Amino acid sequence: MLKSVYTKEFNSPFSNQSRTALGEELAELQRECTEEDISVIIMVDGWESSGKGLVINNLARELDARSSRVAVFEDYSKEDDYFYTYQFWKHKPAMGDFGIFDRSMYYHLFNQLDLSAEDQQTWIRHIKNLEQTLYDDEIILIKFFLHQTQEEQKRIIDTHQQDPYRNILVSKKDLEQNENYEEYYKHFAELLKKTNFAISPWHIVPSADRIMASKHVMGTSINIINDEIKRIKQTREAEKKYKHPYFKAEKSIEDFDLTSSLNKDEYKRVIDDLQARAGALAFALAKANIPTVMVFEGMDAAGKGGAIKRLIYQMDARLYHINPTSAPSDLEKDHHYLWRFYNNFPRDGHIAIFDRSWYGRVMVERVEGFATEAEWSRAYGEIRNMEEELLDDGMLVMKFFLVISKDEQKRRFEARQINKPYKITDEDWRNREKWDVYVEAIDEMIAKTSTEKAPWTIVSSEDKKHARVKVLETFIQEAERILENN
Amino acid sequence: MLKSVYTKEFNSPFSNQSRTALGEELAELQRECTEEDISVIIMVDGWESSGKGLVINNLARELDARSSRVAVFEDYSKEDDYFYTYQFWKHKPAMGDFGIFDRSMYYHLFNQLDLSAEDQQTWIRHIKNLEQTLYDDEIILIKFFLHQTQEEQKRIIDTHQQDPYRNILVSKKDLEQNENYEEYYKHFAELLKKTNFAISPWHIVPSADRIMASKHVMGTSINIINDEIKRIKQTREAEKKYKHPYFKAEKSIEDFDLTSSLNKDEYKRVIDDLQARAGALAFALAKANIPTVMVFEGMDAAGKGGAIKRLIYQMDARLYHINPTSAPSDLEKDHHYLWRFYNNFPRDGHIAIFDRSWYGRVMVERVEGFATEAEWSRAYGEIRNMEEELLDDGMLVMKFFLVISKDEQKRRFEARQINKPYKITDEDWRNREKWDVYVEAIDEMIAKTSTEKAPWTIVSSEDKKHARVKVLETFIQEAERILENN
Repeated sequence: MLKSVYTKEFNSPFSNQSRTALGEELAELQRECTEEDISVIIMVDGWESSGKGLVINNLARELDARSSRVAVFEDYSKEDDYFYTYQFWKHKPAMGDFGIFDRSMYYHLFNQLDLSAEDQQTWIRHIKNLEQTLYDDEIILIKFFLHQTQEEQKRIIDTHQQDPYRNILVSKKDLEQNENYEEYYKHFAELLKKTNFAISPWHIVPSADRIMASKHVMGTSINIINDEIKRIKQTREAEKKYKHPYFKAEKSIEDFDLTSSLNKDEYKRVIDDLQARAGALAFALAKANIPTVMVFEGMDAAGKGGAIKRLIYQMDARLYHINPTSAPSDLEKDHHYLWRFYNNFPRDGHIAIFDRSWYGRVMVERVEGFATEAEWSRAYGEIRNMEEELLDDGMLVMKFFLVISKDEQKRRFEARQINKPYKITDEDWRNREKWDVYVEAIDEMIAKTSTEKAPWTIVSSEDKKHARVKVLETFIQEAERILENN
Repeated sequence: MLKSVYTKEFNSPFSNQSRTALGEELAELQRECTEEDISVIIMVDGWESSGKGLVINNLARELDARSSRVAVFEDYSKEDDYFYTYQFWKHKPAMGDFGIFDRSMYYHLFNQLDLSAEDQQTWIRHIKNLEQTLYDDEIILIKFFLHQTQEEQKRIIDTHQQDPYRNILVSKKDLEQNENYEEYYKHFAELLKKTNFAISPWHIVPSADRIMASKHVMGTSINIINDEIKRIKQTREAEKKYKHPYFKAEKSIEDFDLTSSLNKDEYKRVIDDLQARAGALAFALAKANIPTVMVFEGMDAAGKGGAIKRLIYQMDARLYHINPTSAPSDLEKDHHYLWRFYNNFPRDGHIAIFDRSWYGRVMVERVEGFATEAEWSRAYGEIRNMEEELLDDGMLVMKFFLVISKDEQKRRFEARQINKPYKITDEDWRNREKWDVYVEAIDEMIAKTSTEKAPWTIVSSEDKKHARVKVLETFIQEAERILENN
């Protein structure tokens, strides 16, 4: 892809327009995007010292600051406590906003000549999934790569080095890249080809003439945004008619054996020891720098909170965090539904417990119609991809589904109304009326998201003591397994 | 303070109660606090290896995870890109929530034996101001210091070191502290005495017996929270009757000379050069690691946005960020009004521009009654304290107030309705009707918050070109001054 680009004598079709005029056109489009709830991400990546600063400046300065933000991506090494797309999710613009990215989630790929073929493939797979997710979520992603020759790069580095202030722009990386220009050239060419996806192609911009490059980036962005707004409006119409294909699960949660139970003495005999072991294993995972995610789903009143409380009882409170998932806040509603979870995944050595989770997308949001049929229908795949990313990062992922019978739920609701009225609402009773629809959603969810490496653990919670012990035992078993293989 | 504490044979008045019972009582109080919109911060600080982990565990595990969070404070050195209370504001619990702090904003003070007397005094002053602000905002702050003898500390360090997992809890700091126990003892005793404020006293807890210490922390917290809830309810009643003392400013913004102007040619002659210099100075500030805050306030349609746009025109977009301040979001409403600003102050070498700011508290919130009279009345002092903290951190702080006449505003409103209808709302016209009340608020604000190191720069914006040049010139002058003294 790089070969076809002449870096000298490049003449952009937008060369006759002024940057101010292009900037104002972009600002006009921004207002339209804000009105239409369409986000735009403009990625400015490329060689070191290739003029990203000026291009970003020109892109940003006419935009409305209330709905745009320049985000600087750091070298992955500084953030490698986290999974692949961590920085992206931190910087992702909210619905209707513009995000201008200085570099991108490609930084680490571009930067590392010595990344193994396998690691490279894994990164590319997750980036590809991410770009598909953005596309499906009607976010416009525009990818620019600023290109220049070895001599041009050298000239800029020299100029910067001689400037008393701008010399802070020159790092070792710049010099190293210029010295090994040929090697990087091949590396970039290969990566650009591999990640030139149909839905998100690269735009290579010769940047020797900084002003020309700026105009080209602005003009190209304007054209793409105009086209994409049209496409998105059509997609929105089409999606309204989308029907999720009927799915019949082979097994139903309703047939799950709920007879397991533990009497008080048996429970008392084992619980202290299990909790002490879980507490010790939390330290062991911390020491091994392994991040852990534990998802708790289940029927209302199935005892998720109680099971979590017993699980963490002897864990050091600095090692775990419980994320209760309730209705999304205003800010969360302005983002992709996975955004709030991506921003709460644990850093290495920590445990994130989710009391309800992203699976709400295919349960409550499906049943109550908070998500469109097209949205929840594609969520199964999005969730599988997300969990695969976490697993590839070396995360321990456990998913518990706590089951109770409809009768037992009734007993617990009634008991709550007497003893803990703050724990029962009209909504709980309304959800109960939709028991069968929920079961259908649960069955499909379990069938479609139980993967080899992140299977669902179905736990009978008809007897709470049994459920609590089962959760602890599963955590201990899984933690020991991953530590052994570490 | 430490001397009066016997670390051995300590018998807490809560020793006969079980931790579960105390935890449940705390959870019950948490529900009350959530209902009453009262936040609670429980700080657990103290010696290294003094059992903070277990105490925090016991505090946290019975609480409702939806409205509580354990926050771990890092050693200041990792965050020293930022001002003194940065970590506090990052971790501050929202209205009605519980925050359990593992260490606190005192960490750096406790940790640094070699802090100069002046630095220590500065830190203590800002912490004192912070605790007063929390007190005034009806946030319950409970400060615990876990204390132990040199032998007890040694014993725990040894036990941890021999544990295959818990050995990660032992750092060099633990060993160093134990070796220099006497010196740290004196250091802690002095600091505890100096920061034992009437509104936020320390509670020293002998922690050799971990379980006893946990019970004592829980029981003490319960008693304090009960007392404080009563006090806060009384304060709320009393505050309703608060009347802000009448204030007559010596000068009025209405008497400001608005005749300055620049013709098109003069403007064209200077603007490019000023913008280039501002762009270079942004790099110079970055290189010198100086953070900069620029506040823009002014009448509606005074041209704040336009002045900001010209200011940043040649600045590298990675060095500045524009923070537009509109009505607070749901989350922001659940916090102290300064919270959203504290969380957006620049890190070293960066420029944060505020298009409207915390001064809204004493303008729009005062005039429209969004803040109570008691709230905006004490805001002048809170704002002075906050800016002093930023200045002490070495920040460059500039505050611009753009003035136009009432007639000029009318002309601009009318022009907007024709050319930029998206920039004018009914609210703008309504605010205009309250011109005199706003002027009164502005005059008092400028009189009370123009300090020696952070004065207001009043800018006539009757002629926009004059205002833009004046802002650029002021930035250049101030940046050069701070760089010279650096």
